[in-house]
Amino acid sequence: MGPGPVNADPRVLRAMSAGLVGQYDPAMTGYMNETMALYRGVFRTDNEATLLVDGTSRAGIEAAIVSLVAPGDRVLVPIFGRFGHLLAEIATRAGADVHTIETEWGTVFAPEQIEEAVARVQPKLLAVVHGDTSTTLAQPLDALGAIAARHGALFYTDVTASLGGNRFEADEWGVDAATAGLQKCLGGPSGSAPITLSDAAVARIAERSSVEAGIRVEDDLVLADPIRSNYFDLGQILEYWGPRRLNHHTEATSMLYAARECARLLVEEGMDAAVERHRIHGGAMVAGVAGLGLSIFGDQRYRMHNVVGVEIPGEVDGERVRSALLHDFAIEIGTSFGPLHGRIWRIGTMGVNARRDAVLATLAALEQVLRAEGAPVVAGGGVGAALDWYDGEGAE
Amino acid sequence: MGPGPVNADPRVLRAMSAGLVGQYDPAMTGYMNETMALYRGVFRTDNEATLLVDGTSRAGIEAAIVSLVAPGDRVLVPIFGRFGHLLAEIATRAGADVHTIETEWGTVFAPEQIEEAVARVQPKLLAVVHGDTSTTLAQPLDALGAIAARHGALFYTDVTASLGGNRFEADEWGVDAATAGLQKCLGGPSGSAPITLSDAAVARIAERSSVEAGIRVEDDLVLADPIRSNYFDLGQILEYWGPRRLNHHTEATSMLYAARECARLLVEEGMDAAVERHRIHGGAMVAGVAGLGLSIFGDQRYRMHNVVGVEIPGEVDGERVRSALLHDFAIEIGTSFGPLHGRIWRIGTMGVNARRDAVLATLAALEQVLRAEGAPVVAGGGVGAALDWYDGEGAE
Repeated sequence: MGPGPVNADPRVLRAMSAGLVGQYDPAMTGYMNETMALYRGVFRTDNEATLLVDGTSRAGIEAAIVSLVAPGDRVLVPIFGRFGHLLAEIATRAGADVHTIETEWGTVFAPEQIEEAVARVQPKLLAVVHGDTSTTLAQPLDALGAIAARHGALFYTDVTASLGGNRFEADEWGVDAATAGLQKCLGGPSGSAPITLSDAAVARIAERSSVEAGIRVEDDLVLADPIRSNYFDLGQILEYWGPRRLNHHTEATSMLYAARECARLLVEEGMDAAVERHRIHGGAMVAGVAGLGLSIFGDQRYRMHNVVGVEIPGEVDGERVRSALLHDFAIEIGTSFGPLHGRIWRIGTMGVNARRDAVLATLAALEQVLRAEGAPVVAGGGVGAALDWYDGEGAE
Repeated sequence: MGPGPVNADPRVLRAMSAGLVGQYDPAMTGYMNETMALYRGVFRTDNEATLLVDGTSRAGIEAAIVSLVAPGDRVLVPIFGRFGHLLAEIATRAGADVHTIETEWGTVFAPEQIEEAVARVQPKLLAVVHGDTSTTLAQPLDALGAIAARHGALFYTDVTASLGGNRFEADEWGVDAATAGLQKCLGGPSGSAPITLSDAAVARIAERSSVEAGIRVEDDLVLADPIRSNYFDLGQILEYWGPRRLNHHTEATSMLYAARECARLLVEEGMDAAVERHRIHGGAMVAGVAGLGLSIFGDQRYRMHNVVGVEIPGEVDGERVRSALLHDFAIEIGTSFGPLHGRIWRIGTMGVNARRDAVLATLAALEQVLRAEGAPVVAGGGVGAALDWYDGEGAE
């Protein structure tokens, strides 16, 4: 019940034990095409360029940034938590001219603040985290695509922490590139990064993508300033996933099976239903921790459905509580980074854990552990408040 | 029965369906430590810095090169097949001053040729593929560590295609960095890249590794010229795998289970026994294709045990043969790249397929398909020659 990675859906685990097939076996290329189609449903997009990067969610972020940004390009990163710093760091290492604006952890930006910065910086890329797990908040994105477009920038967002548990509309919101991971609301293991790219993003990438030496044919251009990474050259990766099937890396077959099964689970359930399920059980967890007498961190208007920040009461040792939950109840909750370290726990309700029994069992265990640690708790207050929520605002 | 990826050992597939545990759960960090120890056995090294890069084998290559090479550093790549070109390409994109020497596909270098080039170029890194699957040959490496050391260079090799099926001795041969993948003789899926680094390599990396913004503490240096990639910054990855457990990517848990099981299989069998098994069954395949009347490609003194290049007889269409083997017998054999495209097939005997029944069934099917395509074949010649081999040089 941490902020992710979380335990995977059993169907996803089972999918990974399927036998492997060859890289260009028609069955394998069929699975690749099917996975592309499924993730169009998950990202809510018609983008042809919807595929997987073979690595963890951070590999997807680096692939997007290093492929979209040439050295010297201006990039604007609004930072409202740890993962905004990560986007800025990756863009800096890619040689970009990185500009940032920051807001206090626990808050998000108004669209006007972002537009003012875009107008001032005139970036080629606006890069924003959707849900920043470090603070539990999600930056509203619906206005940002239009802002970027007005100023000639591409709009990239990482939705690893939010996708599947919170509304996301790649096409409707004018998103040019979005990256994700499996280990949060998608209910799978870390290690595969779904990505979607608009036609404008693909065109930007094509300017700097080049076919590698060793498999290049005569018509393929050799560029003086190619994308700085071979592994993350999305142009080459697109040629591998596209009809040319140009050899690049060897697709991570078992992780593709996992990613495909994660998407099938969500598409079968329906994206709206999945988001609503996360709203219901995330809301029950919030009601429950409040019912125990604990305070919730951050501007609640912008909280992700799938994770809540809980202020650690002054009289308890946060790490002892986490340790007791893990060892006595086999329940993991999260610690925090940076300015929130030692100040809040992060409790997740995502993927297969966005479930009534997982919420109630966590609240019951937390009550026992807090009492043993000498914190004042309302007896039965957590589970009771969650049950009230399920009967009221959280009724299905 | 292609040159890899190949079908995985059932034990590895089963390992991937195990439930996930939290990133910092003591069970998980225990698995990480155990995996490090197992791969020391596989690479034959005492290197503390023996771990996994989360991505395919090419991710391991890029991590090694981008972490060991600063922009402007001279790198020497002796090229004897496609994957030598890949090392050069990755080093070029990393900003290195890349020098290459080339030898015809189907041959390897004499150590003197490499020493002459090292003395002339004075590289900071000598980067050589061990087994280049594109040509089926393995460059002898035993003299190269000493050559690099004599000229003040580090010695890096990619052993993806060879490890587990051919002798490899990281410490004895003076290897500073070696990278691998699971999808060849290790009998697992693509998607995790084992890597080992000598103390000298770790020291080189430490000069340019920096802790990322967002989790940096006061004592951590901020460098003007950090490693160009965050995802592939081996210094950060080592801090995550080391006692500090500094958060970086979220370890790909299921792929770690796979990598751990691959190493357990090899360590249980014994590395020498695994190499001998690949010698036996690879030799049987060679004897068998020769027994069918086909010609073998490349200088056989340097052939990897686990893959053989077979010249496509002039009268048959190589792709039709591959297609018939796949569709009628569910056996995949490989095509080839670059100058060998259309000239040779590549037939593998590796991982769980380095097995008597896999060899004999492939030879029996190949005989039928070649006959149907109108090629002259010696009836029973393939299986017969393989059985003779098993009774003679290939006797266990």
